[in-house]
Amino acid sequence: MTFFSDAVFAIAMTLLVIEVRVPEIHVHSDAVLGQALLDLLPKYIGFVVSFMVVGRFWVGHHAVMGLLKGLDRRLVWINLLFLMAIAFMPFPTAVFSDYNGLRVAVGFYAGWLIVLGVMNRWLIVSALGNPAMLRDDADPADVKLMRRSSLIPLIIGTLAFALGMIQPIFALAMLVVGSPIVSWLVRRDRRGASPSA
Amino acid sequence: MTFFSDAVFAIAMTLLVIEVRVPEIHVHSDAVLGQALLDLLPKYIGFVVSFMVVGRFWVGHHAVMGLLKGLDRRLVWINLLFLMAIAFMPFPTAVFSDYNGLRVAVGFYAGWLIVLGVMNRWLIVSALGNPAMLRDDADPADVKLMRRSSLIPLIIGTLAFALGMIQPIFALAMLVVGSPIVSWLVRRDRRGASPSA
Amino acid sequence: MTFFSDAVFAIAMTLLVIEVRVPEIHVHSDAVLGQALLDLLPKYIGFVVSFMVVGRFWVGHHAVMGLLKGLDRRLVWINLLFLMAIAFMPFPTAVFSDYNGLRVAVGFYAGWLIVLGVMNRWLIVSALGNPAMLRDDADPADVKLMRRSSLIPLIIGTLAFALGMIQPIFALAMLVVGSPIVSWLVRRDRRGASPSA
Amino acid sequence: MTFFSDAVFAIAMTLLVIEVRVPEIHVHSDAVLGQALLDLLPKYIGFVVSFMVVGRFWVGHHAVMGLLKGLDRRLVWINLLFLMAIAFMPFPTAVFSDYNGLRVAVGFYAGWLIVLGVMNRWLIVSALGNPAMLRDDADPADVKLMRRSSLIPLIIGTLAFALGMIQPIFALAMLVVGSPIVSWLVRRDRRGASPSA
Repeated sequence: MTFFSDAVFAIAMTLLVIEVRVPEIHVHSDAVLGQALLDLLPKYIGFVVSFMVVGRFWVGHHAVMGLLKGLDRRLVWINLLFLMAIAFMPFPTAVFSDYNGLRVAVGFYAGWLIVLGVMNRWLIVSALGNPAMLRDDADPADVKLMRRSSLIPLIIGTLAFALGMIQPIFALAMLVVGSPIVSWLVRRDRRGASPSA
Repeated sequence: MTFFSDAVFAIAMTLLVIEVRVPEIHVHSDAVLGQALLDLLPKYIGFVVSFMVVGRFWVGHHAVMGLLKGLDRRLVWINLLFLMAIAFMPFPTAVFSDYNGLRVAVGFYAGWLIVLGVMNRWLIVSALGNPAMLRDDADPADVKLMRRSSLIPLIIGTLAFALGMIQPIFALAMLVVGSPIVSWLVRRDRRGASPSA
Repeated sequence: MTFFSDAVFAIAMTLLVIEVRVPEIHVHSDAVLGQALLDLLPKYIGFVVSFMVVGRFWVGHHAVMGLLKGLDRRLVWINLLFLMAIAFMPFPTAVFSDYNGLRVAVGFYAGWLIVLGVMNRWLIVSALGNPAMLRDDADPADVKLMRRSSLIPLIIGTLAFALGMIQPIFALAMLVVGSPIVSWLVRRDRRGASPSA
Repeated sequence: MTFFSDAVFAIAMTLLVIEVRVPEIHVHSDAVLGQALLDLLPKYIGFVVSFMVVGRFWVGHHAVMGLLKGLDRRLVWINLLFLMAIAFMPFPTAVFSDYNGLRVAVGFYAGWLIVLGVMNRWLIVSALGNPAMLRDDADPADVKLMRRSSLIPLIIGTLAFALGMIQPIFALAMLVVGSPIVSWLVRRDRRGASPSA
């Protein structure tokens, strides 16, 4: 299961680059190509932000799986739903990159982050809430911190959505600078631990 | 072999998103983009249904592989044929999404599910029918249930095909609500077991 | 290394489906869509033949890796060259599917199979010819058979190329029916063994 | 982590072929198709060079991971940044293939190799500089050589960039012939060892 999940994460993250397409230029000059490459800035930002967002979910997923003995039938299906939401990410990313000035595009993207956050939390709470699934050597403090940390992406997604409705660019700012701040707030009573690595 | 199979499943499932393409809109307004995103509904449905269908086959495949010591030459080739049918899924999914009102599209999609069902059953019956391949600790009740369960996708595919010929939308309804019902009917004499997890 | 190689094989095989694109039809009728799906026959054939060709190389690769303790620096690079040739397969397959009536297309495809055959043989002969790399429990008869079997794809590729120059369709016939015949000829003095599974 | 990283490398390398597209020819003749396939030479070169460049980074990454017990939180994130740069490679490769006569395209490609080289070195120096992460049986001579070798891609990328600014084709020459020369210079005091295999 871990192997299969890792492959879905890796593919979804690598496929994000497909949306960054080579610009067609009609005059073959350095100036024109240079400008065309600069104009793709929203595509680069979409790639980087989504790669990091999915990467962050992967780090959390990997850490949770490391605390479990296995997955029962129910967890397998919750995991598949979560992976489906991950596999879908290239689409909201492309919408966001292409129409980043429109509230609908930003809302669609941030809305999908909320969906991911909900499924991530559902998976983590279901997995860690079942003592029969936990490894015997799982540290209760790690388990508690991981459950609490699963709120982070949900909070960030919701804030990005709300801010994006006020002004699209605020959503992006939230995603870039909000993550470390919210993480710090949620984790501040257990500094120094590295539960997700 | 398990690793290779898992990778093919993961890639085929993640590639399904490639068919969901960003709409081109000619007026940059929230209303137009919102409508364009809504118009992609058949694409979303195709993605979700196919992801879950392939995911279900993966769950079964994973469970069967867990009961085997290894694969002999013949099983390796049957497995490759099955994986080929899985790898092909993005194409019938795209045909189904693009032309969901046409019987030929629905029949093509449901027909491919029948092909998958046949190959899945062929693989499972061949693998579990060979005592030399079974792990010594494989529970005979699990083996029996798994052989029987391998009929489920075949039944669902056939019903979806037949219903789709009457009315295309019925095929979709069958795929969404039929799976739990048929699963329940086939498994009802062994509730509580979780053989595929 | 095995894991990485398996992933490259799995991705190259699954990407073959990307070349099979949904037909655009201008009249939405079952007859028109049905005809359009039939017209894609060369695409389906290209997908199936290439999937099986690459699958066959994978089976052999997997078997060889199972006889080795590890790969030294030189083998790592030969393996990377072989994987590069495998990763390139979607391109000759697409050329072959699109222009199957032209000798250049058939020659390009069959020529690439010869390249694959040469690299495959190079890898196998290098790997199995180095006693320091062989596992201690590797059966010398298996090793000998595997070295000899590595000629099969080379022979088939060369025959397909030669026949394709006479008449394009002959190349396809060779690939479909030639493989079992040549395999039988090469292996006939060791029936019943299953070295590649 | 190794598994996930390997998958990202494998996918990024295999996706490079997507940029090599079947030429559309308007006269179906062997001569026209032959010429069209020859005209794709820059695409083939881009595929081969990038496959080998990424393959080389993979070989190094694989070797470094083999010396570590695990990755702490900080290394996980440096690794993710490195993998992001790897996953992005299909884009600079496509720009380079399409506009190989323009300094901006060559500079963009070689510039990205410098980015990869910097991240690769950052990851290797961070990982090997932390004694708590090193495996107990890691040979100090291997560690030292690996740290030093991590300068190679950085040097090659910088030389390719500089030469490409003088004349675009020089960058390519550097990438093809420079790698073995620079490798030899950096390693010459430890011939015969095979630290990256």
